[in-house]
Parts: sequence; C-alpha cells; structure tokens
Amino acid sequence: MKVEKINVAEKFELVTEYWSPKIIEQMNDYHFKLAKFKGAFTWHDHKETDEVFLVMEGEMQIDFRDRSVKLKAGEMMVVPKGVEHRPSSKEECKVMLIEPAGTVNTGEVVSEHTLSQVDWI
Amino acid sequence: MKVEKINVAEKFELVTEYWSPKIIEQMNDYHFKLAKFKGAFTWHDHKETDEVFLVMEGEMQIDFRDRSVKLKAGEMMVVPKGVEHRPSSKEECKVMLIEPAGTVNTGEVVSEHTLSQVDWI
Repeated sequence: MKVEKINVAEKFELVTEYWSPKIIEQMNDYHFKLAKFKGAFTWHDHKETDEVFLVMEGEMQIDFRDRSVKLKAGEMMVVPKGVEHRPSSKEECKVMLIEPAGTVNTGEVVSEHTLSQVDWI
Repeated sequence: MKVEKINVAEKFELVTEYWSPKIIEQMNDYHFKLAKFKGAFTWHDHKETDEVFLVMEGEMQIDFRDRSVKLKAGEMMVVPKGVEHRPSSKEECKVMLIEPAGTVNTGEVVSEHTLSQVDWI
C-alpha cells in the first residue's frame, strides 16, 4: 500500500482503454479502481459482493432487469450482490469503482470484457 | 440498504455540523460517510482498519507524527490502520470517508469530537 495521496484526475490520464479498470488504492482488502466507460458492458452480477460506482466525470447508465438508472458526475450507486446489471455510457464516462480485491469485472460471466488481471497504475 | 443513486452534493446539504460525519451508503459492511471539516480534529488512530479520505470540495490537511499532507478536491488518501493522524482544515472542506461500519471517529481516544452514534442521512 502506498501511503501517499492520490490525484484522481491525474490517475485517469493513465487509463487508456475502455472497460479496463486500473487499481489506484487499497483500503484493507478493498480496491479503488478507475475506469473509462463507453458503449455497453456485459450483463453480470457479483455473487459475493456489493459494488460501488462513483461517477467522476460524464454520464453513465446502469441497466437492471426491471429498470435503468442514469448517473452523472457527483452521483454514486451501490449495486447489491447478486443483482444483475449492465453499465453503459453513450459518451466517455470516468468512474471510480470500489469493491473487494480480486472481484472479477464480469462476475461469473465470461465475455470479451472479462479481465483475467487488473493492474495498478 | 437503499438501492437508489445518491447525489453527493445534495447529501452534503444535510450535513450541518463540523466533524460530524453522516452515513449515505453501505457496501457490504463498509459505510460511506460525508463530513464537513473546519479547524483541527483530535489526534487518533484506528487499530483495526484503514480509513479513506476523498476530498469533494475545498482543501484539508492530514498531519502525521512525522509529516503533513495537503489534500484538495479530487484527491484521496488512505490512512493505514494504526497510524496516528489529525485531519484539519482552515476553511470548510467537504470530505467523503469510507471505513467499516461501526468505526469510531476518534478511534480509542475520547475527546470532544468523539461521536457515540453516526446517523444516516
């Protein structure tokens, strides 16, 4: 763990691919990740954990099976464990994700979005 | 747990006292809290957990026994468990805190800042 402050905007400059979160910090066994969203992600859930989305810049949407929620900069949402969801964004959106270390981005679903490894930046 | 989005700026309007964090969300057994800082807090540490400071508006400082770190809006810092620290702010600063539910704001230290209860807003 780095005992240094983090400038979130500066770290976002190091995120160069969509749907590829990078780890910027750790609190206990939780990771803080930065991601850029554009387009639609894979429908999935996380069986073992809630997941936090905090929008830093832009707008995004989280589709649930029965509704959709729009989020803009300065808004956050906790997706409860076991709840299917699909993040999407028409234009580039910068998002902070908070979830336990080792959480796979597509849950148990395997898609073209599934990451086998998440790097620190 | 509320499965609704949260607008952080709107929630800050409900925080009316300095050094009195209010809970806005829960992820697993962690709480997301909003606090307004002004002046100097109590020196303390948290024996059992790291603690996250994410500055939403304004500027603050975290003093450690051997150095001080200034944080401004868009910057964050994880204070590791067991590390003595003292948050302070010359002007009002709006901060998001992330830590396990039940974490006492002054750790094991008892001061005029110690809260016996933290409410949801």
